[in-house]
Amino acid sequence: MAKDKSTRRPKAETPKGFRDYFGADVTERKAMLDRIAEVYHLYGFDPLETSAVETVEALGKFLPDVDRPNEGVFAWQEDSDWLALRYDLTAPLARVAAQYRNDLPSPYRRYAMGPVWRNEKPGPGRFRQFYQCDADTVGAPSVAADAEICAMLADTLEAVGIPRGDYIIRVNNRKVLNGVMEVAGILDPNDPEKFAAERGIVLRAIDKLDRLGEDGVRALLGAGRKDESGDFTKGAGLSDAQAEVVMLFVNAPSEIQRRLQDVALVEVSSEHLPWDAYEALGASSAAGANSLPNSASVTRNEFTCRYLREIVQQSVTGIEGVDELEMISELLDRQGYDARKVRIDPSVVRGLGYYTGPVFEAELTFEILDEKGRPRQFGSVAGGGRYDDLVKRFTGQAVPATGVSIGVDRLLAALREKRKQAGTERKESGPVIVTVMDRDRMAEYQAMVGELRAAGIRAEVYLGNPKNFGNQLKYADKRNSPVAIIQGGDEAAKGVVQIKDLILGARIASEASLEEWKSQPAQFEAPRADLVAAVRRILEG
Amino acid sequence: MAKDKSTRRPKAETPKGFRDYFGADVTERKAMLDRIAEVYHLYGFDPLETSAVETVEALGKFLPDVDRPNEGVFAWQEDSDWLALRYDLTAPLARVAAQYRNDLPSPYRRYAMGPVWRNEKPGPGRFRQFYQCDADTVGAPSVAADAEICAMLADTLEAVGIPRGDYIIRVNNRKVLNGVMEVAGILDPNDPEKFAAERGIVLRAIDKLDRLGEDGVRALLGAGRKDESGDFTKGAGLSDAQAEVVMLFVNAPSEIQRRLQDVALVEVSSEHLPWDAYEALGASSAAGANSLPNSASVTRNEFTCRYLREIVQQSVTGIEGVDELEMISELLDRQGYDARKVRIDPSVVRGLGYYTGPVFEAELTFEILDEKGRPRQFGSVAGGGRYDDLVKRFTGQAVPATGVSIGVDRLLAALREKRKQAGTERKESGPVIVTVMDRDRMAEYQAMVGELRAAGIRAEVYLGNPKNFGNQLKYADKRNSPVAIIQGGDEAAKGVVQIKDLILGARIASEASLEEWKSQPAQFEAPRADLVAAVRRILEG
Repeated sequence: MAKDKSTRRPKAETPKGFRDYFGADVTERKAMLDRIAEVYHLYGFDPLETSAVETVEALGKFLPDVDRPNEGVFAWQEDSDWLALRYDLTAPLARVAAQYRNDLPSPYRRYAMGPVWRNEKPGPGRFRQFYQCDADTVGAPSVAADAEICAMLADTLEAVGIPRGDYIIRVNNRKVLNGVMEVAGILDPNDPEKFAAERGIVLRAIDKLDRLGEDGVRALLGAGRKDESGDFTKGAGLSDAQAEVVMLFVNAPSEIQRRLQDVALVEVSSEHLPWDAYEALGASSAAGANSLPNSASVTRNEFTCRYLREIVQQSVTGIEGVDELEMISELLDRQGYDARKVRIDPSVVRGLGYYTGPVFEAELTFEILDEKGRPRQFGSVAGGGRYDDLVKRFTGQAVPATGVSIGVDRLLAALREKRKQAGTERKESGPVIVTVMDRDRMAEYQAMVGELRAAGIRAEVYLGNPKNFGNQLKYADKRNSPVAIIQGGDEAAKGVVQIKDLILGARIASEASLEEWKSQPAQFEAPRADLVAAVRRILEG
Repeated sequence: MAKDKSTRRPKAETPKGFRDYFGADVTERKAMLDRIAEVYHLYGFDPLETSAVETVEALGKFLPDVDRPNEGVFAWQEDSDWLALRYDLTAPLARVAAQYRNDLPSPYRRYAMGPVWRNEKPGPGRFRQFYQCDADTVGAPSVAADAEICAMLADTLEAVGIPRGDYIIRVNNRKVLNGVMEVAGILDPNDPEKFAAERGIVLRAIDKLDRLGEDGVRALLGAGRKDESGDFTKGAGLSDAQAEVVMLFVNAPSEIQRRLQDVALVEVSSEHLPWDAYEALGASSAAGANSLPNSASVTRNEFTCRYLREIVQQSVTGIEGVDELEMISELLDRQGYDARKVRIDPSVVRGLGYYTGPVFEAELTFEILDEKGRPRQFGSVAGGGRYDDLVKRFTGQAVPATGVSIGVDRLLAALREKRKQAGTERKESGPVIVTVMDRDRMAEYQAMVGELRAAGIRAEVYLGNPKNFGNQLKYADKRNSPVAIIQGGDEAAKGVVQIKDLILGARIASEASLEEWKSQPAQFEAPRADLVAAVRRILEG
């Protein structure tokens, strides 16, 4: 101990990029995850909790070295092993699916919730530990599994409090994009590595449609693009004819929108028509599983699939992709998940480099104000898709898998925003505080909270230094306590307690008229025996 | 990708000392933690979730070096900082209490649940990641805070399913032990460092009473002890008179037991008399807060305190410790937590080196069989105490704190053991499985599970390859499904489904008579429209 005196005091600081969560931040997230787990459970998914630590080898990262230190994971060496904190919940699932392949049911539906860690430069809103919440089906080759994930995602969003019409789940298919690449002549099925660089540029260009507009994307497909600052970005070098194919795909969403309006099937003036209006149009009149849709009864999703089929008709892979999308939309439509909930949308490009089949993205469509006060849509809160190669790394055997990951912090922020907009923000009420007027009567104060707790009322005795009574009320205020109980020697002798209604007290102090002040005393006396009943009356308002 | 071909496949393995939790293991723990959180919440405690990663500095560990690598934590260097995974939930609390000291309410009651990591050699039953569940009160100097923790711990154990009489919370006080050391002449209040080595030996000797017996402890207090193998352990070198003082303390529990029987106050034949018997004795007749207890009305805890007071009466610290224990037992007794739930017990030594005041240990007293089939008590599931120096490391200012940590895995194992003994083990039922007879009718199968889920029934369509129907039933068995639904083309044409009661089926297969077999068919036909009602009838038994 003596030698410690010379050392400096440690800093009391959360490490850079990490956070502490207090009180309601913890309980709100927990409540949301509990609701999500209920939906996942109802769909037959089982929980899985892997350890936070994996071998670097299992995570698929190379050993850290000077040039690429840790590659985005927190890693360290233990004896001969390199260990690391998991950076997502998918890599551990792949390891588990391989490790326990003889014991797990197949298909294996599992959900997982928990923190993941990223060794990235921390910044505003960018943290090095955050929650993910995933559901995946391993071993189901049919796109029925993808459809199920989409339906479950829609149910999940509604279960946590995102109303219909405020979200849309967009679905695309990697195979359709591959078909487009094939037709445009930059993907050779017999030599998948060829034109990889070009495809990379095309993919990044498509993803920038919102920001650069059609002309900007066209420039990047061709020779390249000079931005306002004069910086030049090299293009994919496609010919005009090649670029035209890609642009057909890029423009598909707006073209589909235009054509749907032409045929007056769906008079949508925006991608996000209010739910009621959409419903009134009868846009989703189910075509039925086996009926041949004619143009008068085609659904929006069917229409989109037909349009995409035209673009990729010369590619086997492309047609396969469209077939899959059609199956997904038919399955979903039959269960009531039509284009107002789950929409086939070729504009979804994010994650296409990673996934091998259908991809999904859940977007919240209600508006919020950005930092500059401009309205914008809330945006993406979940994404996923089919990835058939992950388990193969371990076993050499391809295992089909599909799943979704919810951005827990994003979704929680969305729920708070919704409540704020609706004026239904919740400030969790604190415990009833029994104040200490007389230190020797602590047992009696403890008995009071004991009675309150036995009645299910959150309560505590003030356990700081009781000398300054003002501090006790300040404490009650800081805890957002609804009620304070006071019993000094006089009250004890009379067999009564003073009950202070702190909610009413705060309201009276801020807004009440003198008359109200008199008629509704925020503090009153009650017989000691009536303590619980009197407190309950206040809590029940 | 091409170059990967030459590298070997990664091993699909959980890192050494880490575990994966599946299905019911996750939900059972979650259910238990939820119940614990409810009790903590009712007592006014707020949740806190700190990040898994702390600076090594904040954890109070020295920088890893060759001689003491990591000292039991997983640590690594990021830029100039050493980071580490938290090894408990107390060190992060100390950091938080210091970091946010101007914003947090005082006293600050918080609970925390989550994994902690220990860099120890893994072994059977020894893991490097495990759950802890803590509740602490920071900033409450009064022992009323310690009493509250004990009461809350008792409520918690009962809430999760440990019945009264199957647990006991033992309470001791570091100050009483210090008093004993003072009286024995091996603690000088004016020079706390003096005799530190002797005290260490004494503490370790006391902790071995169960194993070594009275003579063994006496030997270790004196010159030393030779064990059966001939190995010699050096003793504390106390004189007979000094050792006698320590032995008075060591023998206190059995002596108290004997005296209580002498005065026929409590006819306890064992430390763990059945709850009912204890109650019938009226041993806990409350003496009242201010009445002077006479020998006829003294409670067991009061008796223990009096006995301890005799031993330490020449030590100011010792008397202070006994006063505190008396206050704790009086507060608890008044609320109904008498010696059958919370017992003052000088035999609690564990953790006394760490804590500065009262210490608690929750022990489960029901019997289990050890590896060799011999009955033994289940043992400790939680421990805690008062530690007034933790925050001081950061701020230089002493802040009183007291709390408890529940060993989550131990408590969960205890609950399972209780259920096993009571024959009420739960095997969680799996989802209803809708089998796939006809791939083209997938939408109809999906509609079935949709209806079941809408009625709150866990259900899924079989999503593996449907060709082999036997595999579908094997899957249902592996999932522990209660019901399978079958609808081929014939059934569809007739508008019916086949409903297979898998629970009944399993029972009939194993034990039914031929008559039962006939009268209770495990598979029956129902109109498609009655699907949900028919399934519900089976599930409700």
